Amino acid sequence: MKFKVIVTLKNGVLDPQGKAIQQTLNGMSFSNIEEIRQGKFFEITVNENNEAKAKEQVDEMCKKLLANLVIEDYKII
Amino acid sequence: MKFKVIVTLKNGVLDPQGKAIQQTLNGMSFSNIEEIRQGKFFEITVNENNEAKAKEQVDEMCKKLLANLVIEDYKII
Repeated sequence: MKFKVIVTLKNGVLDPQGKAIQQTLNGMSFSNIEEIRQGKFFEITVNENNEAKAKEQVDEMCKKLLANLVIEDYKII
Repeated sequence: MKFKVIVTLKNGVLDPQGKAIQQTLNGMSFSNIEEIRQGKFFEITVNENNEAKAKEQVDEMCKKLLANLVIEDYKII
């Protein structure tokens, strides 16, 4: 069973990496960018046929390792 | 106009970062993980009302800066 997880910084949390990318793009003549925020993406293959169970495990992985819930949100898709 | 971009390693390209995460999770008693691959995620806000034009710009950003097309694929969602 395959899951995709997106981890993003919470709104209001400063994203210097995104800012750096934005400045670089501005310097490359992409002038009308309002904002870029960077996040992380994971593709997880779990060896489990029960979808609910597998999703629960992925959820736990996110809480325990993949996302820092103080400053990040995660979404399983 | 807001776009989300996912950049992933191409199939067959080694992903040591994903492997490290997998080993850590195995050590945390998540034993039935088959594979984890890590990618990048970008949320781009473009100051442009024409959707086709905006998407074209984002596409160009991906090709020129955000993704390394030799080893990575990107998807605009």
